[in-house]
Amino acid sequence: MWWLGPVAAIIALGFARLFYQQMMRLSEGNEKMQFIAQAVREGAMAYLSRQYRVVSVVFAVLFGIFLILSYFKLQNPIVPFAFITGGLFSGLCGFIGMKTATNASARTAFAASKSLNDGLQVALRAGAVMGLVVVGFALLDITVWFLLLYYLFPVFLPESFISLAANPLPQITAVMLSFGMGASTQALFARVGGGIYTKAADVGADLVGKVEANIPEDDPRNPATIADNVGDNVGDVAGMGADLYESYAGSILATSALGVAAVGLSGVAFLDGKTELQAGLAYISAPITLAALGILLSIFAIYLVRTREDADQAALIGALSRGLYLSSIGIAVLSLPIVFLLGLPNWLAIWLCILAGLIVGIVVGKATEYYTSHAFQPTRDIAAQAHTSPATALIEGLAVGMESGGLPIAAIVVGIIFSYYVAGGAVNLLMGLYGVGIAAVAMLSTLGFTLATDAYGPIADNAGGNAQMAGLDKVVRERTDQLDAVGNTTAAIGKGFAIGSAALTSMALLAAYLEEVRLVLTELRGVNEVVIGNQVVNVTQMTMQNFMEYYNVTLLNPAVLAGLFTGVGTAFIFSSMTMRAVGRAAAGMVEEVRRQFHETPGILEGKEKPDYARCVAISTAAAQKEMIAPALAAIIVPVVVGVIFGIAGVLGLLAGTLATGFALAITMSNAGGAWDNAKKYIEIGEFGGKGSQAHKAAVVGDTVGDPLKDTAGPSLNILIKLMSMVSVVFAGLIVAFGNGQGLIGMFLH
Amino acid sequence: MWWLGPVAAIIALGFARLFYQQMMRLSEGNEKMQFIAQAVREGAMAYLSRQYRVVSVVFAVLFGIFLILSYFKLQNPIVPFAFITGGLFSGLCGFIGMKTATNASARTAFAASKSLNDGLQVALRAGAVMGLVVVGFALLDITVWFLLLYYLFPVFLPESFISLAANPLPQITAVMLSFGMGASTQALFARVGGGIYTKAADVGADLVGKVEANIPEDDPRNPATIADNVGDNVGDVAGMGADLYESYAGSILATSALGVAAVGLSGVAFLDGKTELQAGLAYISAPITLAALGILLSIFAIYLVRTREDADQAALIGALSRGLYLSSIGIAVLSLPIVFLLGLPNWLAIWLCILAGLIVGIVVGKATEYYTSHAFQPTRDIAAQAHTSPATALIEGLAVGMESGGLPIAAIVVGIIFSYYVAGGAVNLLMGLYGVGIAAVAMLSTLGFTLATDAYGPIADNAGGNAQMAGLDKVVRERTDQLDAVGNTTAAIGKGFAIGSAALTSMALLAAYLEEVRLVLTELRGVNEVVIGNQVVNVTQMTMQNFMEYYNVTLLNPAVLAGLFTGVGTAFIFSSMTMRAVGRAAAGMVEEVRRQFHETPGILEGKEKPDYARCVAISTAAAQKEMIAPALAAIIVPVVVGVIFGIAGVLGLLAGTLATGFALAITMSNAGGAWDNAKKYIEIGEFGGKGSQAHKAAVVGDTVGDPLKDTAGPSLNILIKLMSMVSVVFAGLIVAFGNGQGLIGMFLH
Repeated sequence: MWWLGPVAAIIALGFARLFYQQMMRLSEGNEKMQFIAQAVREGAMAYLSRQYRVVSVVFAVLFGIFLILSYFKLQNPIVPFAFITGGLFSGLCGFIGMKTATNASARTAFAASKSLNDGLQVALRAGAVMGLVVVGFALLDITVWFLLLYYLFPVFLPESFISLAANPLPQITAVMLSFGMGASTQALFARVGGGIYTKAADVGADLVGKVEANIPEDDPRNPATIADNVGDNVGDVAGMGADLYESYAGSILATSALGVAAVGLSGVAFLDGKTELQAGLAYISAPITLAALGILLSIFAIYLVRTREDADQAALIGALSRGLYLSSIGIAVLSLPIVFLLGLPNWLAIWLCILAGLIVGIVVGKATEYYTSHAFQPTRDIAAQAHTSPATALIEGLAVGMESGGLPIAAIVVGIIFSYYVAGGAVNLLMGLYGVGIAAVAMLSTLGFTLATDAYGPIADNAGGNAQMAGLDKVVRERTDQLDAVGNTTAAIGKGFAIGSAALTSMALLAAYLEEVRLVLTELRGVNEVVIGNQVVNVTQMTMQNFMEYYNVTLLNPAVLAGLFTGVGTAFIFSSMTMRAVGRAAAGMVEEVRRQFHETPGILEGKEKPDYARCVAISTAAAQKEMIAPALAAIIVPVVVGVIFGIAGVLGLLAGTLATGFALAITMSNAGGAWDNAKKYIEIGEFGGKGSQAHKAAVVGDTVGDPLKDTAGPSLNILIKLMSMVSVVFAGLIVAFGNGQGLIGMFLH
Repeated sequence: MWWLGPVAAIIALGFARLFYQQMMRLSEGNEKMQFIAQAVREGAMAYLSRQYRVVSVVFAVLFGIFLILSYFKLQNPIVPFAFITGGLFSGLCGFIGMKTATNASARTAFAASKSLNDGLQVALRAGAVMGLVVVGFALLDITVWFLLLYYLFPVFLPESFISLAANPLPQITAVMLSFGMGASTQALFARVGGGIYTKAADVGADLVGKVEANIPEDDPRNPATIADNVGDNVGDVAGMGADLYESYAGSILATSALGVAAVGLSGVAFLDGKTELQAGLAYISAPITLAALGILLSIFAIYLVRTREDADQAALIGALSRGLYLSSIGIAVLSLPIVFLLGLPNWLAIWLCILAGLIVGIVVGKATEYYTSHAFQPTRDIAAQAHTSPATALIEGLAVGMESGGLPIAAIVVGIIFSYYVAGGAVNLLMGLYGVGIAAVAMLSTLGFTLATDAYGPIADNAGGNAQMAGLDKVVRERTDQLDAVGNTTAAIGKGFAIGSAALTSMALLAAYLEEVRLVLTELRGVNEVVIGNQVVNVTQMTMQNFMEYYNVTLLNPAVLAGLFTGVGTAFIFSSMTMRAVGRAAAGMVEEVRRQFHETPGILEGKEKPDYARCVAISTAAAQKEMIAPALAAIIVPVVVGVIFGIAGVLGLLAGTLATGFALAITMSNAGGAWDNAKKYIEIGEFGGKGSQAHKAAVVGDTVGDPLKDTAGPSLNILIKLMSMVSVVFAGLIVAFGNGQGLIGMFLH
């Protein structure tokens, strides 16, 4: 059954290649369209190559640090290499996704000039390249590393690697988690850098172009318009791809690690007559086969999507939703025989966890839709407040954003409690958390499809830009606008999935962290027994409760509270840094556009060509510069907290960042989405329509929301997981301080 | 030494009476001034009486619930009465403060027509009435209740009250905490209702008056101007008074409870040859005498404040800061002999905690000043971004707000860790938390003075309004403006103190909550032994660690995480509710003002008098209606979480609300303050000055900031503590469900 994983991964990559080749065979339209597409392509690739150069330096430094840690026996020697591959494949996904997207935009515009359905097909299948590459590479990497570690490395590196001869699985899953940290690091840079790039260009283009010069969006006279289109690709395609690669891989890896650990501590409860190794393999196989099943159903769903020529907004959303629902139902039905055949003793419970994950995902998605679509009250309320003034529209939008976390939080809480207890958490805490992890994997199992609908958005958006700039017939722009508007909703739902699964996965990561601590204690530091209360406990037999007691991880330990406060503060300050970065970069862009309009009056008259390249260069330079500080903060904070406050402080930190970051990310994403769609609602003629005072007020809201929803919000999602991953990978260093009691514990107790 | 408490309380009330009488003897100026003052007075009193009517109903219901709980032996029979008195005195403070403030505004305007110093003296001493009434009543109530419980009630209610014959202190401090819940409940309604009132009127007046009709602030032609001035009184005076009454009383009560509990569990460590009762009394006396000392020094400081006629902004802030610094230094010096004479075995450590509290308070205050005063970079950056557009000013302001929590969080974390360990937390967890509580009491010890400078702000503001509307000489308005501007900074610092002390007090409340649970188990439910792990533990001897184990309060318990998520969500949703309430109420006000301008064109020409009363009525009705839902949510959530998830869930909930609420409150308060002062910075001539595009953009920021800084932010402060208090008071009910394991524990374990 396990082999379903690599097979599905290869099938996914094969279909990605097929879709890419089909797309490339289509026409890119006339010369002007090709020229514009080429400019966007060059800008995007130039940005990506500079970003990868910066990230390479960071990876080289971290690789060096891990080598040093390995040398001092504070980390497993394979970790540095696993870390590198995670970053490499994540970056590769971003690259392929963006290459496809930048090649697809002109082709989508050209196809849309024939019919709405043609446009939809080209954009969606180009998006599907990204979706399938992400899930394909992620599952391939996981399974190949597993094979390597399981069959090859014990032969070459017997001593330094595997001392748990009877059951090497705990070591293997722990090493593989460091592969997740590579992916997270890459994802954070991609999201933060891409997010700053895209919003600096967008805000800059809008502020001068739309508001001051009164020219429409994507007007070729706007010098920032190419940069804006490049931004959609580097932020919403490459950034999002790296982000979800990380979420997907992280949830599978963390769940596998928990499955192995749960079996190890369960006594006979979850062995069902098997050896620990056999049972562990079965529990590792469950998330992998679930992911494999999701891939196959995603490909099926992509083929299902089509639309009629006279489709309206609702029909288009319906076409995409049908794909999502059918693949979800497919997973619900087909996963039952799979978990049964895997021979899991609690197979029915695990299947219920899968259902819970699917349902939580749909609730989170629907709640996002409710709060951000102008078919519903909240967004319309914002539009009504825009009728009063920009200030009231902003207050209302912030309030809507803050409220919008309620339902997702409730769904997550119910999902956690349900999965935990149904999987057997009352008997074995780790098995309960394994159930929560399985729910996260289930939520992300349709990622191949949801990511396709997600990446489709910026492609349609860029196609519209291409059509506008190339001066195509008005009907083409109308069709691409229609495709793009649906993309806004699918993007918001995608963000909901990402953050929801992050919340579920993070619980698993808290436990995985302690499992890593156990390995560090036994394998690297040779600590076999610890004293808890008056009892001597064998480290390999320590339960999670023992860990909690040993490290005093209770809410009355000031180290935990210090960590909690620091975690909350980190989420807020990180958001502040990314938002200010956008503000600064956008201000630079505004000045440049104003300068061009001022120094070359021929631009606005349409007689002279603006200097697009300069705007692209400004966004690129600003994003490079601004992404460093927040990304480094995310890596440094958990290490510093761990050294000072020990394991207890780290767990407080992670809980604080998780809970606050989750609520803050939803608030920012949904406030931004709601402002955006309130503006669109006014544009379709409500409250005075385009050009009215209400519309101007809504544009202010939309502009404020841009960095919230596309930079700070989604970056928080990765922050949460990167901080968990950093904690796991640096556990060896932290445990070196008083066995994980931290400096506080060493000197004050 | 303990008697210093009631004596200082009576002195405070005596001086308050003196200052009030002195103020009332001054002239209220000409007839027009008196008329305006009368209108504001009537509006304010009308509002307050309606608010108290609504609150009375809530109190009656809660009183009934507590009676029922007492009847079923789920709560002590004295609790309902203690609860009522807390609410009563808190309301009384608000009433007296507002009566003074509304009588002082015209008198301040009249005094300011003579000289700046005269204006300052009248406003400050009127503010001092409020400051001294709050600290005086709080300390009097605490000491009188203590005397009653200690000497009288055992005689009349021997059986149902005190079974711990040797040491009744744990029972007494537990009952007195419910007095804190009364104060918190009153405070929440006052803050939320007052906050909605004041900002609805303010936003409404500004949006139509300043932005649309282009008439200056406080122009008599603006129909909402009286409501705006009433709002300053009901929100910033009555609301703030109730708020800080609660903070002040809460910190003393929680610290006392911890002192008693710490002694009870310390063995001989903190007895120093005394009996438990004697040592407990000493630890109770420490916060009370510290507060008494602070009162005496506050009165001294009020007499110190005076200014020269040519004083600028810095000189005025200097005059007020001098008072704060001198009284802080006085406390630092004089508290050393006091804690020594109290005979505390760890007197030097407790004194260090007092110093820590004073220093954390000053750091939080200074950080607030840095982020909100336009003498510093952050606010100037917002002004610079306003030069670009409203949207960038808003992004920058949100970012500044989010960043501004960093330093206070760091100060609080260091303060907690320092106080905890220096007081002896490594030996006795409760004594460590007692040290943290003492730091909170020290931070608030100068409240008599800081609250005077706080309440002085709205008085000066109203004096300015009075001068403007009465058409006094321009120099009067300039002087009151100068006084008012300083008030903005003192108000921001006051909010910093309130939220900082809330964070410190809440830690103490977490432990006090478990102490209450202990009493419920032993006294009300007759549970004398529980099984933890394999051991039978006597409940009266359970350590905090035992509680953590018994209720499984670790970060890997899904009930704790469910509580944590719920707590974070509650903070966000509560903020959303209060902000939307302001938005809705303000929209009603905008419509009314527009209607009056439209239907009676004579108003804007100055020929006809606008209908002030109608605007006052709109704000009043809206505030009444809108305050109910958020206030009830704060009371219901902890009970529901407790019933479902048990003690573990409640502790997670409180930690989540505390950590997130703290960061969110600072973010909102400081973002609002910074926008306000960025506008003021532009008004003094930067970036184009009044009437420029930058100014208009800054006005949008200021308006968005209004409900954040004056409604949602300060309300969160009380939300945090009310939820803790509710948990303490309803502990009996929660423990009734599976001894505090909750429904989850009863049915799933």
